[in-house]
Amino acid sequence: MGIEIERKFLVVGDGWRAAPAVPYAQGYLNRDKLRTVRVRVVRDQAWLTIKGVSVGATRAEFEYPIPVADAEQLLALCDGPVVRKTRRVIEHAGAKWEVDEFQGDNAGLVVAEIELPSEDAAFERPGWLGAEVTHDARYFNSSLATAPYCTWPEARARA
Amino acid sequence: MGIEIERKFLVVGDGWRAAPAVPYAQGYLNRDKLRTVRVRVVRDQAWLTIKGVSVGATRAEFEYPIPVADAEQLLALCDGPVVRKTRRVIEHAGAKWEVDEFQGDNAGLVVAEIELPSEDAAFERPGWLGAEVTHDARYFNSSLATAPYCTWPEARARA
Repeated sequence: MGIEIERKFLVVGDGWRAAPAVPYAQGYLNRDKLRTVRVRVVRDQAWLTIKGVSVGATRAEFEYPIPVADAEQLLALCDGPVVRKTRRVIEHAGAKWEVDEFQGDNAGLVVAEIELPSEDAAFERPGWLGAEVTHDARYFNSSLATAPYCTWPEARARA
Repeated sequence: MGIEIERKFLVVGDGWRAAPAVPYAQGYLNRDKLRTVRVRVVRDQAWLTIKGVSVGATRAEFEYPIPVADAEQLLALCDGPVVRKTRRVIEHAGAKWEVDEFQGDNAGLVVAEIELPSEDAAFERPGWLGAEVTHDARYFNSSLATAPYCTWPEARARA
């Protein structure tokens, strides 16, 4: 078991676009916030990931590699549509940011996550970092499967 | 992925008791019949198992070994109490039967399962085999976590 301490932010501007983008497909066998079970496929690798309830920015996480052929079948078993996005990994001031640009019904949404050693660990903000959304459950990938960004007032305001 | 074809029966008499009994503990990260996610611990081994919806006696099944230390923590994350039982494996006329004797809130319930190559495959009935319950969802282990045998009219009738 690992403990995951992450903070999540909106992304502004285009300064993050230069990094190479890797396609991610993921679905949820369980979207219950108390025990999320995620299937994720990244190119020729796949994982099954179980996360416990979030306490602040901290969450228990268990991750196991599985065959991609299994994962493709498990995605079809999932509750709700598959969430597709591209991920860019960007180093900034010694920290690693993951910038996810969503596709399909979540197109227009871009979020950045940083994994931290503790909840109050200091980090330097990249120029493209927007407002923090760590505690907004709408931005959980598990929520985006069934309540996608295209249905939000924010998305309509941008359109 | 495997396909699981199983038939399930009640058990009568005591002819099955002589076989050695192995303790099982299991819980469910998801009890949704469309996509059950089970954590199981058997002595010093543990597995994460995902099963799809049952079509007749047939069900898609994906099983992955996981560390026992992870499994113990995952059992604590599960939805509903841990189901505890002992399993006896009994050979009869060339077929392998698994006889599960439940404990705790499911004490008094004993069921036997046979895995078959096809839904209509022939098999010989052991003397201790009772009525078939393959299609009765109350006997799903995933149901026994939250609607245990002690709450059923059958259990009260036996008491």
